[in-house]
Amino acid sequence: MRCTSLIAALCVSLIPVAMTDARAQIGVVPMPSIVQPGTGSLVVDQTFTVGIENYKDARLNRALLRFLGNLSRQAGMPLSTKLVDPAKATLVVRADHAARPVQELDEDESYTLEVTGSGARLSAPNPLGILHGLETFLQLVETTPDGFKVSAIRIQDSPRFPWRGLLIDVSRHFIPLDVLRRNLDAMTAVKLNVLHVHLSDNQGFRLESKLFPKLQEMGSDGSFYTQAQIRSLIEYARDRGIRVVPEFDMPGHSTSWLVGYPEIASAPGPYTLDRTWGVFDPTMDPTRELTYRFLDEFIGEMAGLFPDQYFHIGGDEVNGRQWDANPKIQEFKQVHHLNDNHGLQQYFNERVQKIVAKHERIMIGWDEILDPNLPKGIVIQSWRGQDSLAQVAKLGYTGILSAGYYLDMMAHASDHYQVDPLTGAAAALTPAETARILGGEACMWSEYVTPDNIDSHIWPRTAAIAERLWSPQAVQDVGSMYRRIRAASWRLEWLGLTHRSNYLAMLGRLAGTDDVAALRILADVVEPDSGYNRSTLASSMGIVLTSATPLNHLTDTAAPESEVARDFATAVNALVSSRFTDHASEAQVRTQLASWRDSPARLEPLLRGSFLLKEVTPLSQDLASLGAAGLQALDYIRRGERAPDAWKAEQLAMIDRAKKPSANLLLAPASAVQVLIEASTANGQKVP
Amino acid sequence: MRCTSLIAALCVSLIPVAMTDARAQIGVVPMPSIVQPGTGSLVVDQTFTVGIENYKDARLNRALLRFLGNLSRQAGMPLSTKLVDPAKATLVVRADHAARPVQELDEDESYTLEVTGSGARLSAPNPLGILHGLETFLQLVETTPDGFKVSAIRIQDSPRFPWRGLLIDVSRHFIPLDVLRRNLDAMTAVKLNVLHVHLSDNQGFRLESKLFPKLQEMGSDGSFYTQAQIRSLIEYARDRGIRVVPEFDMPGHSTSWLVGYPEIASAPGPYTLDRTWGVFDPTMDPTRELTYRFLDEFIGEMAGLFPDQYFHIGGDEVNGRQWDANPKIQEFKQVHHLNDNHGLQQYFNERVQKIVAKHERIMIGWDEILDPNLPKGIVIQSWRGQDSLAQVAKLGYTGILSAGYYLDMMAHASDHYQVDPLTGAAAALTPAETARILGGEACMWSEYVTPDNIDSHIWPRTAAIAERLWSPQAVQDVGSMYRRIRAASWRLEWLGLTHRSNYLAMLGRLAGTDDVAALRILADVVEPDSGYNRSTLASSMGIVLTSATPLNHLTDTAAPESEVARDFATAVNALVSSRFTDHASEAQVRTQLASWRDSPARLEPLLRGSFLLKEVTPLSQDLASLGAAGLQALDYIRRGERAPDAWKAEQLAMIDRAKKPSANLLLAPASAVQVLIEASTANGQKVP
Repeated sequence: MRCTSLIAALCVSLIPVAMTDARAQIGVVPMPSIVQPGTGSLVVDQTFTVGIENYKDARLNRALLRFLGNLSRQAGMPLSTKLVDPAKATLVVRADHAARPVQELDEDESYTLEVTGSGARLSAPNPLGILHGLETFLQLVETTPDGFKVSAIRIQDSPRFPWRGLLIDVSRHFIPLDVLRRNLDAMTAVKLNVLHVHLSDNQGFRLESKLFPKLQEMGSDGSFYTQAQIRSLIEYARDRGIRVVPEFDMPGHSTSWLVGYPEIASAPGPYTLDRTWGVFDPTMDPTRELTYRFLDEFIGEMAGLFPDQYFHIGGDEVNGRQWDANPKIQEFKQVHHLNDNHGLQQYFNERVQKIVAKHERIMIGWDEILDPNLPKGIVIQSWRGQDSLAQVAKLGYTGILSAGYYLDMMAHASDHYQVDPLTGAAAALTPAETARILGGEACMWSEYVTPDNIDSHIWPRTAAIAERLWSPQAVQDVGSMYRRIRAASWRLEWLGLTHRSNYLAMLGRLAGTDDVAALRILADVVEPDSGYNRSTLASSMGIVLTSATPLNHLTDTAAPESEVARDFATAVNALVSSRFTDHASEAQVRTQLASWRDSPARLEPLLRGSFLLKEVTPLSQDLASLGAAGLQALDYIRRGERAPDAWKAEQLAMIDRAKKPSANLLLAPASAVQVLIEASTANGQKVP
Repeated sequence: MRCTSLIAALCVSLIPVAMTDARAQIGVVPMPSIVQPGTGSLVVDQTFTVGIENYKDARLNRALLRFLGNLSRQAGMPLSTKLVDPAKATLVVRADHAARPVQELDEDESYTLEVTGSGARLSAPNPLGILHGLETFLQLVETTPDGFKVSAIRIQDSPRFPWRGLLIDVSRHFIPLDVLRRNLDAMTAVKLNVLHVHLSDNQGFRLESKLFPKLQEMGSDGSFYTQAQIRSLIEYARDRGIRVVPEFDMPGHSTSWLVGYPEIASAPGPYTLDRTWGVFDPTMDPTRELTYRFLDEFIGEMAGLFPDQYFHIGGDEVNGRQWDANPKIQEFKQVHHLNDNHGLQQYFNERVQKIVAKHERIMIGWDEILDPNLPKGIVIQSWRGQDSLAQVAKLGYTGILSAGYYLDMMAHASDHYQVDPLTGAAAALTPAETARILGGEACMWSEYVTPDNIDSHIWPRTAAIAERLWSPQAVQDVGSMYRRIRAASWRLEWLGLTHRSNYLAMLGRLAGTDDVAALRILADVVEPDSGYNRSTLASSMGIVLTSATPLNHLTDTAAPESEVARDFATAVNALVSSRFTDHASEAQVRTQLASWRDSPARLEPLLRGSFLLKEVTPLSQDLASLGAAGLQALDYIRRGERAPDAWKAEQLAMIDRAKKPSANLLLAPASAVQVLIEASTANGQKVP
């Protein structure tokens, strides 16, 4: 699902609801539903053991061993990996009964975790809740002056939505299996439960078909998963309480199929893989029986591979050009009284839905597939927004939200956090309609990510989306969210995620040296502009971005959200709202501004030495200007002088320039510096 | 091989030989034998291709694909992974003939690499040289203002020694397969060619035996490699030009065997795994035929698994207590005219050597096995030093050096770098004797390493040892070595090594937060004291260090060699030798000193909050004192004043204290600050 006007969805605003004190104290993400603090705390030391009561199975066993391994790694402390008699265990785990053999949407994921000074007890109807409760426990372990501890607490927790997903597009850039695996580890840490793999698109067909081997042989440049690999991935995901939903986009976004099988296309071909981004003409021929026979066999094969109940057919962005140009297709439309291409696609969807249903799967597709002739069971994934989703629910269909959760838009976690599936028109739904809104999915489209930077584009921002989909709607405190996802982000490193470590390695690559301290001052405060703007910019310069374009620039390296800029803005706000009496914040702000002002001298040799860094010279100069302007503003304020209007005008012009993207990067601290400049000319800004 | 008096071996000093200019220019480690610069440079961009001339095989193919993958990752630039017609390739690779099916010691590893403005040509007698040349090429790629380039050059290169190894002890702490694999990647990057796996010791038997399954079942706590896993590791190593030499320590260091098979022990047992470190009593019974039948079958099984020609029997540190206490063994000694336990161990070694030879392997063992009755073919691995090694060679045996290359002694790369197998008594050998000294091995004993910190204990220091074993003896420039291994260290991150990334994660663990900037100021300049001192210290405090002791303290986190302290010392030396006219160095020194002086205020909340950090409070205070003292010294100098004697005495007393280990850590900058203090009271230190 690629579109260009999603940003509107990010502007939904909700009234922040203060969190209860109990919730505010804990570092857990997503925030649990009910948190009751107790007294005392449980020491977590090398005597820590786990025992299982009641229901037992191999998955639960593996989960507990993994939990012990993670706790051991997080604490740097060897722990016994033997499960013990529950009467003697520090943590007792109790599931009432088994989970279903194939994870289903309506399974109970709730759990209760009770920690006292003498032990902990985690109970749940089935192992899914146990999996979630174990992750909560890991996040509760604190480093204290007297050892690792968990404060006494009682948590009752269950998800707000049953469908909490992450889409990873493995077509535009192939994403190897180990990268998917580490992202599954991260997903389970924040209680996401669906990995949606976008397996085919114009740029690549990424899964082995044994019935139609030319799909991967001719449609993947050799980069695809074998069936054995995908089976192991599904097993890995199931162990972590995560469903794997496959998407094979049709009838559009399908060039990669048509390279090997032009006979199902709407124009004769031959076809070659697309190397650029966008919506292209190649489309399956919805008028030929051959197409449906092909899809029947293919979907049957895939249903044998993917046990999940849902099968995603994409269904988005058909431009209709091949259909318009093909007289036989035109004739077919007339014969079948299909008024337009939309009607023709509806016809296709209805045929495909019957095939999907025949193979005992429920069809899911993007907004475009919505069609009153389709049975009510299908699921609509909405890239259009809450109003579209509300419409889906009103018509009796089920839906999930992805508008507002597109990670490639480079929005901040706080923007995603404010997007709620049940706002806008969806807020006015009846309870029955509301129940049809199943949840949402963060989407990691892969035009501009590779294994090097995909983790930093997904994490930690996706933790904020995970909280929106799991926690009660009233959980809205942005400051608390940032504090908690920052802690979660750090823990993800122990699971092998590379969102932090690869950043430093990529800076070294940019500079051609490991001495990147000077570069980091700049890199820490720039944020990549949206991928959409990137391609627009490139087009305007006559540059064609392709799947072979090196992603080794600063815009590929910088994190989508600058922590340094956020901390700086927080300090500026504290300073201003204290009417400049908060000296600690002022010192912090000044140190930061000075480091920016002085950065070009240190950075300049690196910029001169590397062809990859030349383009950031203007950014480096603008950052220095921001630093100098902020310090001057503070000096005016400190002297109790009103800054001259001419000076202010000059600085604001500079700020305007600094706010414009350069090298597809934005200088994140520009607005906070502007606040200082405005403050320096405010009336009555007299300072003690 | 555990001993306590190796540090002497580090004191060998060699007269540094100036490098030729040509060598000084390139960033390759180990430094090649002959380097001739050309004119122009080869652009490395997305048109880069590789082709094979003449000899071809699957391993060579995989090596080229891996090379293309590494180049692509290093540059962040997609490259075609298709090998092309050599007439059209950017880099042409040509091996004359195959390498042997099992890599042997006398195989030619040389290569010639010629790079011009229009292409590159890598030729070698066999694929081993090609593997080495490809690594050289990767290191030659530079980031320039106009793109990635390799300066025109002609390199003729071959190793000085044929045995260039890294020992990894997987017994004391189990080291999982993926950690070994990433270390193999790093080894090949610096042209090491032997992975010596210390597979059994008192604390664990780490390999599956199908004939004697109680070895791993009762002797490993469940942490061992299956035969399939070790086979895949051997294959992985062979692909990288690395031999895998197994070591099964006998007759001592063998508790883990005896847990499952007490019948081969010298005392009845029962036995349990040792959890502490040192030399223990359990020893195989050299007087029973059962022992030799067992070893015959076992070694036969292992010979079927490990194709390498060499089989390491350990043979070190038998304390003889079980032998002395067993009347039957005493009687056996009398009957066989064995004067002492050494004689009895010689008897054992001779029997074992015959078994090893029967299975077509060459025996290797530590110094203690040396015995004129053993055939000349065997190899002695010397932890005793060059004189012992020279003795080995004079007696007609072959040997390798490990004294001076023990990574757990926490020596600096420069110390290891100065240790040369052919110095001391070895310098006076005849050419024939010299030829018997095959090389050396770095040793990573694992009392105090886990998967978290093993990489940082091995890398980058082992790159300096690799250079000593590969490059001409005259390559001695320590500054050049540090510059080059620093670049190599950064490249290792792209291979998945965690010596840098885990450092930050471990700091977060210590602090219980990811905000570790303040902690890092201290952590960057402390160095762990030797593991030997650690256990001595613990004993003196009545603490028993065991295999379950958490390795989560700052001494486990800090790198064995502080780059920050080295850079600081370099700047101090530059400042002093400029007679304080080098203002850039002074600014650098002052900034560093001020950050140390000011660090406790920021660090104190972290130290108070974490039980893991309490112990470093005195270090933090000493670091602040070093910072303050250094700044005061500079102020005296800058004012042209001689510092008062009383002040100096006070500072030197502080320095003395700061030089003593605390929390098993040493403050690395103490000596450089002392230089400043001494300078501030020097006569005629008049400053411009």
